Amino acid sequence: MSSKEKRNKLVIVCSKGSLDMAYPPLMLATTGAAMGMEVHLYFTFWGINMISKKTVGSLKISPVGNSALPMPNILGMLPGMTSMLTSMMQKKMDKIKMPTIPEMIKTAKESGVKFHACSPTLDMMGLKRDDLIPEVDDIIGAATYLDLASEDAITLFI
Amino acid sequence: MSSKEKRNKLVIVCSKGSLDMAYPPLMLATTGAAMGMEVHLYFTFWGINMISKKTVGSLKISPVGNSALPMPNILGMLPGMTSMLTSMMQKKMDKIKMPTIPEMIKTAKESGVKFHACSPTLDMMGLKRDDLIPEVDDIIGAATYLDLASEDAITLFI
Amino acid sequence: MSSKEKRNKLVIVCSKGSLDMAYPPLMLATTGAAMGMEVHLYFTFWGINMISKKTVGSLKISPVGNSALPMPNILGMLPGMTSMLTSMMQKKMDKIKMPTIPEMIKTAKESGVKFHACSPTLDMMGLKRDDLIPEVDDIIGAATYLDLASEDAITLFI
Repeated sequence: MSSKEKRNKLVIVCSKGSLDMAYPPLMLATTGAAMGMEVHLYFTFWGINMISKKTVGSLKISPVGNSALPMPNILGMLPGMTSMLTSMMQKKMDKIKMPTIPEMIKTAKESGVKFHACSPTLDMMGLKRDDLIPEVDDIIGAATYLDLASEDAITLFI
Repeated sequence: MSSKEKRNKLVIVCSKGSLDMAYPPLMLATTGAAMGMEVHLYFTFWGINMISKKTVGSLKISPVGNSALPMPNILGMLPGMTSMLTSMMQKKMDKIKMPTIPEMIKTAKESGVKFHACSPTLDMMGLKRDDLIPEVDDIIGAATYLDLASEDAITLFI
Repeated sequence: MSSKEKRNKLVIVCSKGSLDMAYPPLMLATTGAAMGMEVHLYFTFWGINMISKKTVGSLKISPVGNSALPMPNILGMLPGMTSMLTSMMQKKMDKIKMPTIPEMIKTAKESGVKFHACSPTLDMMGLKRDDLIPEVDDIIGAATYLDLASEDAITLFI
């Protein structure tokens, strides 16, 4: 490969189940797909929340444990603060016309992004294929993920 | 490219706004630049705190939500604990002659590291170019980031 | 390199010291090694907890600050909840026959995975070689890590 030849593959591990860390992989995935890249998302650990029917529409932001937030932990831990902060962020997202997570997943899927669920995580969480959103293509293990990543892909762990 | 040819480009996404997760990308960036690498930092989501005038000099560590810390959450959430822990870490950093975040940013910039702010994040946070530190080179979107990453770069999401 | 030639090297930064984020790098490392890959783990910041004699056997999960958990922060911060949640996850891991972290480290080492500790982090934490588990191969800095990563490796920051 000459140094000017571009890589055309993007393989992202999605390991977080919070609203703020669900946006970056989906924004990169939809952008990559629009640029003609082959894009794979591998959902593992908390990232399963992004593709579980029960949670995909209600991802939240934590008001504690994130020192980037201006809110003191002693306020953040109060009941109702998680919902309030999540709703505030969702409003900001709406304002800049950013789609919701379920909408981004739909767009990603339509653009050809592949959705892979991590097999041992599903076992650990006691989840089955039916508990996952229909956009999921397959259930794979770490070996298949590494095989995808080894094909000269841009790799990220989010 | 033969397998012995080395990659000479480093493209890091900075997505966290805490003191502890601000050090790794800046340490890698300054080291990479000193080794002659072309280095790009792409600041997105909470990572904007690392390049915002208002927050760059006052990044903090959270005393809760990090089970690597020996402190129980019920103590960590008390007022004053974030400042205390942040000040303790800063002292440890001083002791090993580790520069502060603003100093590392200055060094990185002088070594040729490129600073890119994520456009949709700025819109979401209601921030303008003037709210960012002068070291920021430009405001770009996910497509430009992916373009940089696709040029056979070492890619990391921090 | 033709686009069909596969990369055969995996270089992972381990920066977290929690039980949930200790599993992914070790699962990928052992799988990669079993596939014949050359695998390097670079332990930095909180990741040092994964290779410190004092903490390797007692990594925990935080019940607060992770909005993927169904538990409200006001409950999660109570004394005893970290142990309870950690013990619950460990039981789920046992049930799917997932080894413990010390067992995975042993397996990884036997499969040829290389363990590198980050030099400035040890200085900052006041730790010495003797405080680290025997599986650690060496103590290196960011330049050596970047050198490993630049050899056409799959790179991840966890």
